[in-house]
Amino acid sequence: MFEFNLLAECGGARAGEFVTPHGVIETPVFMPVGTQAAVKAMSPDELAEIGAHVILGNTYHLYLRPGAGIVAEAGGLHKFMGWSKAILTDSGGFQVFSLAALRKVTDDGVEFRSHVDGSAHFMTPELSIDVQEKLGSDIAMCFDECVKLPAEEAASRSAVERTLKWAQRCRERHSRADQALFGIAQGALFDGQRVECARRLIEIGFEGYAIGGLSVGESADEMYHTLDILEPELPKGSPRYLMGVGMPDNIIEAVSRGVDMFDCVLPTRNGRNGTLFTSEGSVNIKNAAYERDFSPIDAACECYACRNFSRAYIRHLHKAGEILASRLCTWHNLHFLINLTKRARAAIIDGTFRDFRARFLSSWHRNGADDVYIPGDA
Amino acid sequence: MFEFNLLAECGGARAGEFVTPHGVIETPVFMPVGTQAAVKAMSPDELAEIGAHVILGNTYHLYLRPGAGIVAEAGGLHKFMGWSKAILTDSGGFQVFSLAALRKVTDDGVEFRSHVDGSAHFMTPELSIDVQEKLGSDIAMCFDECVKLPAEEAASRSAVERTLKWAQRCRERHSRADQALFGIAQGALFDGQRVECARRLIEIGFEGYAIGGLSVGESADEMYHTLDILEPELPKGSPRYLMGVGMPDNIIEAVSRGVDMFDCVLPTRNGRNGTLFTSEGSVNIKNAAYERDFSPIDAACECYACRNFSRAYIRHLHKAGEILASRLCTWHNLHFLINLTKRARAAIIDGTFRDFRARFLSSWHRNGADDVYIPGDA
Repeated sequence: MFEFNLLAECGGARAGEFVTPHGVIETPVFMPVGTQAAVKAMSPDELAEIGAHVILGNTYHLYLRPGAGIVAEAGGLHKFMGWSKAILTDSGGFQVFSLAALRKVTDDGVEFRSHVDGSAHFMTPELSIDVQEKLGSDIAMCFDECVKLPAEEAASRSAVERTLKWAQRCRERHSRADQALFGIAQGALFDGQRVECARRLIEIGFEGYAIGGLSVGESADEMYHTLDILEPELPKGSPRYLMGVGMPDNIIEAVSRGVDMFDCVLPTRNGRNGTLFTSEGSVNIKNAAYERDFSPIDAACECYACRNFSRAYIRHLHKAGEILASRLCTWHNLHFLINLTKRARAAIIDGTFRDFRARFLSSWHRNGADDVYIPGDA
Repeated sequence: MFEFNLLAECGGARAGEFVTPHGVIETPVFMPVGTQAAVKAMSPDELAEIGAHVILGNTYHLYLRPGAGIVAEAGGLHKFMGWSKAILTDSGGFQVFSLAALRKVTDDGVEFRSHVDGSAHFMTPELSIDVQEKLGSDIAMCFDECVKLPAEEAASRSAVERTLKWAQRCRERHSRADQALFGIAQGALFDGQRVECARRLIEIGFEGYAIGGLSVGESADEMYHTLDILEPELPKGSPRYLMGVGMPDNIIEAVSRGVDMFDCVLPTRNGRNGTLFTSEGSVNIKNAAYERDFSPIDAACECYACRNFSRAYIRHLHKAGEILASRLCTWHNLHFLINLTKRARAAIIDGTFRDFRARFLSSWHRNGADDVYIPGDA
């Protein structure tokens, strides 16, 4: 179970497959975020139609609402939400540190208050694993401590040490053989800390390795530098997951640095706000320029929204506050990212990834992207 | 064009078919409301999947946003919104009198301010027809004056006279051969006014006749009485449309009084609020009773929501504010009403409508319906 097969390498990029109890995840892969047991605005059938192999669920949110007990009684998260392919759950760490009202962080765990109803909770590495085992995801994540950027070296060092202790406790607590456990490398922008954290995680031993603490305000070059530093450290035989990255150019640059897995709320949240990926950069469909534009969002796209509706119509739906606007734009953006990673994968297997990357980035930057992504709110 | 074929009658109820340029409408029929060129939360594909033959568009809303000119440039409302079956547009009358800030009503028309941006407009029977012709619906409605209930006899009389004058002007203005025009009988709860209004509309001559000014606060018995009064007046060879009625029991009672067509925002709006039709009355899915209820909304239902999701999951989606909650509940409610009119039609054709009606109403009232429907906001 949880075999990772590396099928091809090309220009630093990798094509692989990660075998899970709920199907094979072909990598590189983008994972749509289904925070509260639903990918916002999408149905499970639609996610399958756009080719999603795996989606992400948020442990923090599901622990608070509806509660892991109810999900377990329903037969687990797959059955609860009607999704038969793979699910990765995060540990709740990022949300506890970004969404909740923090009370106290100790080596034991984190005391916080729910953003839903203000109730008091104490999250520990053990509880995070117990909740994820009850949810029954295919991939669980270690509970980690994230520091905000810019971070002091000592603060980051302290978070790294705590993250490693917690990783050990997560590994020891974890018991489901049908669930993989991934470690998370922290270390902010300190190369030495990053490398050390990765090495000590590998000593503990996980089914996959995630790079956390990025896409939280650093520059793209800083992100790419950290990936360059970590690439030779991470085992070739395990999947590598860059958490919270979802801009198309960032994904392609990270793929070229050996990353296999991605997740981000950007395509779904931006979709609801009317910001859409196209092969020539992103556009905001609410702009007056599209009032009488009867062409599709992206003529090169074959998603449901682009096959059936015009920019003028989708703009109208946004202006009128129609739910269908969020649906069509989310559908398009998720299709765009999933299709992008599929095309990257095919190019890696064909040995043409370098060309693919150059062509994609040139086209993407043609008109300039106008996205503003504020991380932290999953 | 616009042939109405009466196929069967049974216990006062009629089964027919109304032929339009965008397909045959099998009656009795429930028409989902697509106020702003979209049935809230639904895609055109889903509407087709649940068996909708015809949907309603609101002239008032589309006139204000995006404007009839843009819809016409797009190739008409069907093409703009990606819906290939029939569309009925209302005249805007009801919305002008209920949503807009009224400035002045004269025989010429109605001066009002937009509820969107406060801009000033003057709607006349001629403009209503022009807008509907630009939208290119299959069925247009005459611009009428609605009075609020309870109405004074003189106020209602004045609205009836104005409605008849405006109906004549609409008939004269209307020019599209590929668009039917329906007259609207007003008269509040005054039997004599209702009968006279219907007779004088029939003298003018329309492709169908609507009963307006009901479902605005009167009792069910008062509504049924008005239908009983009008039934013998309306030509058998034309479709009859009861505007704004969407409660399942009201629909079945109206069908048994010879009504063919219905529309209402109730299934869509209630769906968004979590109130769901079931074969044993309506339920509010947000109730705590459903927290651990892993059965479908209605075990007798075959819609997408009932085939794939539990009450516990849908309740969770509502509590969490997920768009998918609105989608699944709207889908279920529309499926319920469309399926109800289909089953009624089959029973009329089979000659078993009396039994069908008795069985349906007995089951529907078993647990009591907890819907509160506030008319007026389309």
